[in-house]
Amino acid sequence: MSLNALFNPRSIAVVGASADSTKTSGLPVAFLRQQKFEGEIYPVNPRVAEIDGLRCYKSIEALPVAPDVAMVLLGSAHALGAVRELAAKGTKHAIVLAGGFGESGEEGQERQRQLLSAAGGTRILGPNTIGLVNVSDSVPLSASGALSAGSLLKGSVSVVSQSGGILGALLSRLTANGVGLSKLIATGNEADLEIADFVDYLADDVGTSVIALYIEAIRHPEKFRRAARRAREAGKKIVALKIGRSAAGARAAASHTGAMAGTDRTYDAFFRDLGIVRAQTFGDLVDIPAALATQPALMGRRVAILTSTGGAGTLIVDSFGLHGLEAPDPDTKTAEQLATVMPDGPASLKTNPIDVTLAGLQPEILKGCIETLLNSPAYDALVVIVGATSVRNPDLISNAIREAKSAQSKPLLAYVSPYAPEAVSRLTKQGVPTFSTPEAVTVVLNALWTVGRPLRRREGSQPRPAVDIPGDWHGSLDEHRAKSLFARFGVPVVREKIVANGLEAGEAARELGGRIVLKILSSTITHKSDVGGVAVGLDAATVGGALDRMREVVAARVGRAPEAFIVQEMVPSGGFELILGCHRDPLGLVLLLGMGGITAELMNDTVIRLLAPDISFSRDLALEMVQELRCWPLLDGYRGRARLDVEGLVSAIVAFAAMAVALDGRIVEAEINPMFVLPAGEGVCAADAVAVLTSGLAP
Amino acid sequence: MSLNALFNPRSIAVVGASADSTKTSGLPVAFLRQQKFEGEIYPVNPRVAEIDGLRCYKSIEALPVAPDVAMVLLGSAHALGAVRELAAKGTKHAIVLAGGFGESGEEGQERQRQLLSAAGGTRILGPNTIGLVNVSDSVPLSASGALSAGSLLKGSVSVVSQSGGILGALLSRLTANGVGLSKLIATGNEADLEIADFVDYLADDVGTSVIALYIEAIRHPEKFRRAARRAREAGKKIVALKIGRSAAGARAAASHTGAMAGTDRTYDAFFRDLGIVRAQTFGDLVDIPAALATQPALMGRRVAILTSTGGAGTLIVDSFGLHGLEAPDPDTKTAEQLATVMPDGPASLKTNPIDVTLAGLQPEILKGCIETLLNSPAYDALVVIVGATSVRNPDLISNAIREAKSAQSKPLLAYVSPYAPEAVSRLTKQGVPTFSTPEAVTVVLNALWTVGRPLRRREGSQPRPAVDIPGDWHGSLDEHRAKSLFARFGVPVVREKIVANGLEAGEAARELGGRIVLKILSSTITHKSDVGGVAVGLDAATVGGALDRMREVVAARVGRAPEAFIVQEMVPSGGFELILGCHRDPLGLVLLLGMGGITAELMNDTVIRLLAPDISFSRDLALEMVQELRCWPLLDGYRGRARLDVEGLVSAIVAFAAMAVALDGRIVEAEINPMFVLPAGEGVCAADAVAVLTSGLAP
Repeated sequence: MSLNALFNPRSIAVVGASADSTKTSGLPVAFLRQQKFEGEIYPVNPRVAEIDGLRCYKSIEALPVAPDVAMVLLGSAHALGAVRELAAKGTKHAIVLAGGFGESGEEGQERQRQLLSAAGGTRILGPNTIGLVNVSDSVPLSASGALSAGSLLKGSVSVVSQSGGILGALLSRLTANGVGLSKLIATGNEADLEIADFVDYLADDVGTSVIALYIEAIRHPEKFRRAARRAREAGKKIVALKIGRSAAGARAAASHTGAMAGTDRTYDAFFRDLGIVRAQTFGDLVDIPAALATQPALMGRRVAILTSTGGAGTLIVDSFGLHGLEAPDPDTKTAEQLATVMPDGPASLKTNPIDVTLAGLQPEILKGCIETLLNSPAYDALVVIVGATSVRNPDLISNAIREAKSAQSKPLLAYVSPYAPEAVSRLTKQGVPTFSTPEAVTVVLNALWTVGRPLRRREGSQPRPAVDIPGDWHGSLDEHRAKSLFARFGVPVVREKIVANGLEAGEAARELGGRIVLKILSSTITHKSDVGGVAVGLDAATVGGALDRMREVVAARVGRAPEAFIVQEMVPSGGFELILGCHRDPLGLVLLLGMGGITAELMNDTVIRLLAPDISFSRDLALEMVQELRCWPLLDGYRGRARLDVEGLVSAIVAFAAMAVALDGRIVEAEINPMFVLPAGEGVCAADAVAVLTSGLAP
Repeated sequence: MSLNALFNPRSIAVVGASADSTKTSGLPVAFLRQQKFEGEIYPVNPRVAEIDGLRCYKSIEALPVAPDVAMVLLGSAHALGAVRELAAKGTKHAIVLAGGFGESGEEGQERQRQLLSAAGGTRILGPNTIGLVNVSDSVPLSASGALSAGSLLKGSVSVVSQSGGILGALLSRLTANGVGLSKLIATGNEADLEIADFVDYLADDVGTSVIALYIEAIRHPEKFRRAARRAREAGKKIVALKIGRSAAGARAAASHTGAMAGTDRTYDAFFRDLGIVRAQTFGDLVDIPAALATQPALMGRRVAILTSTGGAGTLIVDSFGLHGLEAPDPDTKTAEQLATVMPDGPASLKTNPIDVTLAGLQPEILKGCIETLLNSPAYDALVVIVGATSVRNPDLISNAIREAKSAQSKPLLAYVSPYAPEAVSRLTKQGVPTFSTPEAVTVVLNALWTVGRPLRRREGSQPRPAVDIPGDWHGSLDEHRAKSLFARFGVPVVREKIVANGLEAGEAARELGGRIVLKILSSTITHKSDVGGVAVGLDAATVGGALDRMREVVAARVGRAPEAFIVQEMVPSGGFELILGCHRDPLGLVLLLGMGGITAELMNDTVIRLLAPDISFSRDLALEMVQELRCWPLLDGYRGRARLDVEGLVSAIVAFAAMAVALDGRIVEAEINPMFVLPAGEGVCAADAVAVLTSGLAP
């Protein structure tokens, strides 16, 4: 069902409206009147006859029509009945402002369930929300002064926030910085409508070019993923601040909205898949939309810096260097052109930051320099520094920029060096996003880079290998079954045999040949070596005796003799140990690749990806993961070492990923540790394995 | 020589003063008159008779007295002669504003040398500076509008900057934020007076409590170290933004001041030794002084957050979690006291952030809550959040804070959630440092923590072991000499013998016993294994043949047969490889400890310290380094592994550091790689070594 009628209602009922516009319950009608809302407004209040010339209704039942939107201003106790009556009347949307629901203990959670049940076919925004404002069309649906549309600039940035307080703070900052707004939504407790619903709506909203999100938790990741992908494919740029980055923050968020936070690193992968820019700070969530709304994507990393003051350029270059942006000197041709624009200019025209000095602040010179730098093939973007002199006349800069003719579309930003909020606001309003910290300039350029990367194509659904799995393989599989499972999907595993006694062990060892490893076989003992259940470097002659001793030792330690053992070929040295695993996270199936071994745990050299059912996990993606490992050079022939079998590793990762997707809904976790990567041409080999499956097929 | 007369001159000559106060050269006199400077002002200009009622002198020679300070407003060509005449007159200080000296190529550098030579006994500030302002006493010595003292607030923050542009930008921001200033200095090219001189002056300045520094490079680290230590011991707090954090930034800085930047990580160690807070961003350099100027040091990590609005507290807690600050819930007693203050208060009084809701914004309740939290032994600091409601009445907050009685001295900061620069300024001026990003609150609390850590005591000078070193040990020592050098200072090294042929090798192997390693001995071939010059796992029977083969292989590869070999005991397995080294950096002798082995290079698990000649490098400091390694658990008995000989390692580090200090001035670099750390009780053992010494004793 579309949310059009929520954002552009023809009729609005205000349940519990007060005639006193100094009271909170008097504000919604007052805001609507101030904004000259052209549809019908139906105040509902049994004790009042009219409000500001509008007829007031005694009850919801008495309303002349089913309203498109009802604002419920009653406390939690009365809101429930009101929503029931609104639903009976056929109301399309109800906005429930009251708190005292899901965010406040078990009793509140029960009340929220009742609310949702009472709503029937009426869609609910809230409860515990400050409401919604359609700035583009001047429709304020809120009792909050922060959202009173009168003070807001119109523009193309829409904001969806799970916190009303944050929405208010964000709006006041965006507005002060000269950023224009489109649709604003505080989703509150998300009893019904949630962030994903609004992203889905905004995907089709022509008035929106940027969607800024404040997220404490995503309730339905798949729904969010579909909505965000649709919005991205429709050309919308998305920036999200997801808090709960630290354990402490996750707890504060949980107490605030009653939502459970997912693992933070998985959110990085999730956003990355969707080309969503992740804001790292609240300040970023203010700065990034300003640039995304007006500037094209950044298509390279080379940035020209034009300044008339020393020092500030140095700060920007320093910040660039820490975040992978470059500030190369002008090439010969660009330097020549700059010299033409400013014939007696300083020597500093040849270096970047390009310092025209105060003498260069003449309109024609400024325009010529900007034109030259925007048209130079040596640069992908331009940052203009506004110093103490030009800050008194920001139009000098914006005029020069407007008049500069550029054949190419490149980002152009400004940085103000002194304290100058008016210049920030004025230039931003004039289409030159302007920032007051060097870090903001860097963050914003990287955001413009992110939104320029192509989205991963959906290549139909992941091919699901047709593999039979015995019906009794569920719960925690033993090592042999886990490896057999992986092997059925094409992951190379070590050769091994299950044996019951020393005699069988000797035979198995002869058959496998060479040096062998002996382990107990158990689906319950996970740390086999801790109980004496692993012996290495054996052969056919010694394995029998070793098995007898192992049986005794393990029996003594765990109180029960193992019934079966594995005899396994010993992987030759020269390989490199990795970990390859996957597990189910609230956001989806997570694939993890990491350096193995005991040092690795401390260095935590791991890379993760979410396995999306609608994106085929290709060899390219697998190779990308391998190359992101810090230990990648050790696989690639570091300092004259042998190059290892990266091709084989990539094949194994793709096979493992395909297995995880094929078993999606059944897989809880699966891990190969260690996975030996052998020298080039010799493949890889899973030496130990864990797999936990649910019994059913449904997730 | 004291700089008192520079900051509080009785007489000021202004050389090249113009009568036209709209011209730059007219500003210094105008600024002095505006500020009602009470000493003598002597304009010098042969073409003008008087300026603003002041007699104008035809020449420097014609001045009635030797001025305490002369401002030289002439261009670079004429400044030289003026400084020579000022020196002849006996002028104490000259401020040379003109550029065109050291910052602009070889010619400029030569001009700067001439300037310094012409100055004689006159101390020079600049050239290429915007000057100096004593805000406390209203003495502006500048031609820059940014420094015109009229617009600046008086306070206790002094700023020393190597960039005039940055100084101007910083002042405008500090002033806008309500931070009061004391002394402001742009050091320019530092031909004579440099940052260290001003830190030294400010150490004794009663008007200064905080020294904020913008640094592109420190010219004389030892001088800076002495000055900073004196200032810290006098109770001054120091915060420094040192740019050049990235290679690109270092280059931009070099082109800006002509100064060479040191290695960035070494600066971290340098500042840490002196208890100097390192600002990471320009914004930090604005925020941190505001708090240091008025708040006591933070003595614990537990912070109470008092709010009346949702969301903002979550952002702060999230930021805390990323940077090691804690926001624990109130303990039972504190929660009870809060309930007494606000008997019908919300449930959220029991959790942190402590949310009093809008109902809690009554003066008595607010005061009571602040009092309770400041006095609670459960908290070390308090952050008060200013929401959209209280932002309209900031005095509500500041009055409550002023009236709250606290028995203890703890930091109290405020955070404004909406855009509210007036509230930031007003509250900061009222003594409650106020910030507009959650990150600033976190950064500032950590700065308050840093300044509260005790400075390392000087324990007399480092004991210098009396060790004789043969006169011909200089340049790059061969491996055996390097190890002998380290052993003389008490570092345990592997047992080894030098041999010339297979027969001697066999004898040496028998004497050493067990398995041995054979290497070529060379002071020129650094990568011995690359040329086939290392063989391991030999014994007395096999070493002779191995030596003959090695001689042939190395001869074939490097074109010359090695003349000597080392036979070395082979360190038993079970140890852990580290690297221990030192090298001379512009900031001093750097000691480095790191994880060894090929993986280590990629993981870069290293810790550095500067070896200060005036601080004894104790066992505690050595252990601190070891425990900062990410691989520390592997030394400490990780997951049931054997604990290694940390005591022995600490002894070896202390011995190595003592050697480095004893050889200071001679040592270029020294390195043990690998250093084996053996199981507890078995010590450590340097298995390979490099040492490069200069021949002389002078640095």
